Amino acid sequence: MPHDFDTAIALTALDKGRFTGATHPAYANMVGPYGGITSATLLQAVMLHPDRLGSPVALTVNFAGPIADGPFEISARASRTNRSTQHWSLELSQQGVIATTATAVFAVRRPSWSSVEAVAHNDLPPPSQVPPSDLSARLPWTRRYEMRFVDGAFPEPLDGIEQPKALARVWLRDSPPRPLDFPSLAGLCDAFFPRVFSRRRLFTPAGTVTLTAYFHADEAMLAAQGDRYVLGVARGLAYHQGFHDQSAEIWGDNGRLLATTHQMVYFRD
Amino acid sequence: MPHDFDTAIALTALDKGRFTGATHPAYANMVGPYGGITSATLLQAVMLHPDRLGSPVALTVNFAGPIADGPFEISARASRTNRSTQHWSLELSQQGVIATTATAVFAVRRPSWSSVEAVAHNDLPPPSQVPPSDLSARLPWTRRYEMRFVDGAFPEPLDGIEQPKALARVWLRDSPPRPLDFPSLAGLCDAFFPRVFSRRRLFTPAGTVTLTAYFHADEAMLAAQGDRYVLGVARGLAYHQGFHDQSAEIWGDNGRLLATTHQMVYFRD
Repeated sequence: MPHDFDTAIALTALDKGRFTGATHPAYANMVGPYGGITSATLLQAVMLHPDRLGSPVALTVNFAGPIADGPFEISARASRTNRSTQHWSLELSQQGVIATTATAVFAVRRPSWSSVEAVAHNDLPPPSQVPPSDLSARLPWTRRYEMRFVDGAFPEPLDGIEQPKALARVWLRDSPPRPLDFPSLAGLCDAFFPRVFSRRRLFTPAGTVTLTAYFHADEAMLAAQGDRYVLGVARGLAYHQGFHDQSAEIWGDNGRLLATTHQMVYFRD
Repeated sequence: MPHDFDTAIALTALDKGRFTGATHPAYANMVGPYGGITSATLLQAVMLHPDRLGSPVALTVNFAGPIADGPFEISARASRTNRSTQHWSLELSQQGVIATTATAVFAVRRPSWSSVEAVAHNDLPPPSQVPPSDLSARLPWTRRYEMRFVDGAFPEPLDGIEQPKALARVWLRDSPPRPLDFPSLAGLCDAFFPRVFSRRRLFTPAGTVTLTAYFHADEAMLAAQGDRYVLGVARGLAYHQGFHDQSAEIWGDNGRLLATTHQMVYFRD
């Protein structure tokens, strides 16, 4: 049996640069699919494209409108191909209406001076010592991830007592476990619930409007990580007039930084 | 006399959604225009579009290829318009070749619960107590900003002695001063030289490949800031295989967070 993740991101080529796919109930969100599975599927369209050059450097996904349960079409166009970098423009549509837009940067990556400057989180208990969360009653897609929160679990009770910070540190992996690859790393970048829920201890309408992922991992780092837990660290920086940002890091369990990711989230009072 | 910034981002509508503009020598970079002026010009195309809804929430600009000195064309298309949000897809091209792609999210913003969670920098000396930098010998566009570095000035001498951090904290404003607006805020988001120069104390080929700006300021916050200095704070998180990221904040001098911005930078050893 294929993993539900692979089924969810599966695409059929219509012609060069046009693909069809379908939402998968395992990754359902409150309305439409989980944003991370949409990001992963858009990245997969480039991965499958015969003209693709190299591996992902950056992905921006704009959640422009709701995606209805059912089939969708993705167009992927190389807007510019250079010697070692390539820029992609993507659209996901249903019945001719654009629901999601995206851009991606790919590159043939080569060894270089290398460093992790972000502050590491070496003092955390290992996943085996952190109890798993269960948010599945709220959102089906959360069953597709094991989530073990060191800090910043979903606030319960929702008592409306404002908190000073929305920091989350959570061990994450696909459920059932699946070896990490670029699409699943893209999927993990959206695995944090809106920071405003943590800050306000309230559950209000909220959703990502745009997400950017920067890929620091190469294939060897992904292979070294395998299907073990990654550490997700997420923060909010500013909340104003119905939108807030989120900045997050996805760390390998060997202390390597696999991805950094940022998003703007719409929220209602 | 109009400010060079306004001349540089000036666009002429060809028809609905198509504009022409031209590079401006005041904002020249080593090759082609300064990335921040390109970002500002793309945002300006949406600001000028008759179908625009509200004000900017997010902007992603992909620097797909070099822009030659001279005229360019911008296409701006509303890929989706909702009741209170609008998603834009943009391309900048020269002689039919795409040089830059972008997406933007605009929204009609309304009052909401509001908070700044990012760590403030209240302990810094005011701009008047920090000497100005002069990078103009290297890059013409830097003459269009006053830059007063509290930390992380351009490394001199370039002695190749590796540093542990690339933190920059710099008072910034347009030169000559100009009241802050959304395009100039977008421009400021790219005003940091590549973090890898600070880390390695080396000057090697490097350039932004993709930049995202999140706008937390509303019109009233921009008006309150006027033409006074903003504080730019920039960091690097990960450097690997020829690319590194940068995360930065643009603070008002009253402690309000005006924008957060992220980018991936190509660099050579």
